[in-house]
Amino acid sequence: MRGAVMYGPGDVRVEDRSEPRIVEATDAIIRVPATCICGSDLWPYRGLDTADWPMPMGHEYVGIVEDVGSEVTTIKPGQFVVGSFFASDNTCEICQAGYQSSCIHRQGIGAIGAQAEYLRVPLADGTLVATPDLPADDLVPSFLAASDVLGTGWFGAVAAGAGPGKTVAVVGDGAVGLLGVLAAKQLGAERIIAMSRHAPRQQLAREYGATDIVEERGEDGVAEIKELTNGLGAHSVIEAVGTQESMMQAIRATRPGGHVGYVGVAHGVELPGEELFFSHVHLHGGPAPVRRFLPELIDLIWNHKIDPGRVFDLELPLEQADAGYQAMDQRQAIKVLLHP
Amino acid sequence: MRGAVMYGPGDVRVEDRSEPRIVEATDAIIRVPATCICGSDLWPYRGLDTADWPMPMGHEYVGIVEDVGSEVTTIKPGQFVVGSFFASDNTCEICQAGYQSSCIHRQGIGAIGAQAEYLRVPLADGTLVATPDLPADDLVPSFLAASDVLGTGWFGAVAAGAGPGKTVAVVGDGAVGLLGVLAAKQLGAERIIAMSRHAPRQQLAREYGATDIVEERGEDGVAEIKELTNGLGAHSVIEAVGTQESMMQAIRATRPGGHVGYVGVAHGVELPGEELFFSHVHLHGGPAPVRRFLPELIDLIWNHKIDPGRVFDLELPLEQADAGYQAMDQRQAIKVLLHP
Repeated sequence: MRGAVMYGPGDVRVEDRSEPRIVEATDAIIRVPATCICGSDLWPYRGLDTADWPMPMGHEYVGIVEDVGSEVTTIKPGQFVVGSFFASDNTCEICQAGYQSSCIHRQGIGAIGAQAEYLRVPLADGTLVATPDLPADDLVPSFLAASDVLGTGWFGAVAAGAGPGKTVAVVGDGAVGLLGVLAAKQLGAERIIAMSRHAPRQQLAREYGATDIVEERGEDGVAEIKELTNGLGAHSVIEAVGTQESMMQAIRATRPGGHVGYVGVAHGVELPGEELFFSHVHLHGGPAPVRRFLPELIDLIWNHKIDPGRVFDLELPLEQADAGYQAMDQRQAIKVLLHP
Repeated sequence: MRGAVMYGPGDVRVEDRSEPRIVEATDAIIRVPATCICGSDLWPYRGLDTADWPMPMGHEYVGIVEDVGSEVTTIKPGQFVVGSFFASDNTCEICQAGYQSSCIHRQGIGAIGAQAEYLRVPLADGTLVATPDLPADDLVPSFLAASDVLGTGWFGAVAAGAGPGKTVAVVGDGAVGLLGVLAAKQLGAERIIAMSRHAPRQQLAREYGATDIVEERGEDGVAEIKELTNGLGAHSVIEAVGTQESMMQAIRATRPGGHVGYVGVAHGVELPGEELFFSHVHLHGGPAPVRRFLPELIDLIWNHKIDPGRVFDLELPLEQADAGYQAMDQRQAIKVLLHP
């Protein structure tokens, strides 16, 4: 089968990879009609993450189940399924508390590589959620979004305590940030401030529910958020970037007693303990336990209540994965969907 | 009047200070029958905090109201009152959300100096809470504890999500840590692990509700907590020290999805963003909004449900404040009560 492999920074190739097969009795094999490129794939692409080259790429996927191992009981061949970037048993104490991305048996999908025609999904019963029936083609991008960026933006909004009566600010206008806006809206937030200086992203943020746009960043951005919130800061801030500047922007834009939900994978971040102490914020985040939210997200998408697939503003055949990485790296595309 | 003043590290003197008087119409003047030395007073005493010497000391107090300003309406002369280390209006949006120690009008009591015969308390109506009647002498230490260490330990336990079914670990066996144990017990925690290597403190921890004692620190302490929690870590960890080691011990001893409530004033702490991200913990803390809890704590003490005053294992006349600082610095006393 064909699959994307990164050989080094800036070097993504689509090549023949061996077709996956059942390894563990809890595995499923799915055919992947749509996968995509993640903002976090850009860290190694830009040389900012070390990696064992060459490495297969991709951890976002939907699929049609082709085969299941002998111990798989709920997932059936022929189903359309949505998974996420960590396989999880969904039964351990950590999963049951809603932290499937820290499951005691978790396995990273990224190491397997979802930007490919077929994918082996470990712990299929715990990891995959089937849609009610085979979805129409126009819903596929939204289900694909649910597998990471929507689930991650949703977790950011939940971790930030977004809800009725709350003012929510979103740091980062990538797909996760934009879907954080959508999530905050769905969770009932009263006011949603998107921090973005890119007109097309501002536009999508507004369509997803943003009531205000702040173009400033850093200290100026913080000052603007305070200006909009009676000098206090937002109740809830979703951090969807992962840099030192964005984390401090998020913490400083939050009022005492407010919540920062941080979902941008932290890179080189060091949080000053004393400032954090006196900030009085709640800090919660990490790799989103997408599995916790999948049943609800699938229901919202199936019933056309939300349209997260709109973050895909470029679709390419898998063979052109490299062009997709370039487009995202250069911010010519918000998020790139690949068709294997 | 007499009051304690620090002239530099290790140099505490009790000297004549001018008697306080009403400055703002919202002030109260109280006579202080009991005050105490805080673990945080040891930072400058040990030369680990910079300060403008000489500085008046103390921020924990109870008192009998002597006089009130013209705008004070609920606090009356003759009442026995408990306050805390930040004066707060208790009406602003931040106070109403329960974060009185970040009140938009907050004023630090430490700068005024509560280790003295009399104290001016700003924003008296918002800051002070009166007991139902004048308390018996044996309740005074407990009310004094409520003004900081009990309120702080309680906030740590609340921030750590202590409650029924939860395993709570407490890092730090000072007065705040010990009262974090008491708070966790009152909040219904199922299992409470006190981290302490000092027999008298272990004993008090057990009397306050600790079910387990862990003597190891750092990575060994973390391993022990995991050993006691099926490899997962505690649900809730109260951090009551404020050093890099203690913060990392707290974070690492917490299971994914669990909560760290940190109330030790952070000194030189830098939290590694990537580790925090993947730890999946909730982090919340800061200067305890003691005022939020005072009505409940006063009720518990008045009705003899809790006995937090037992953390005072040394009582001295104010004139011997210096000996009290020495005893706490050398860990010969858990906490020193001073009688002005």
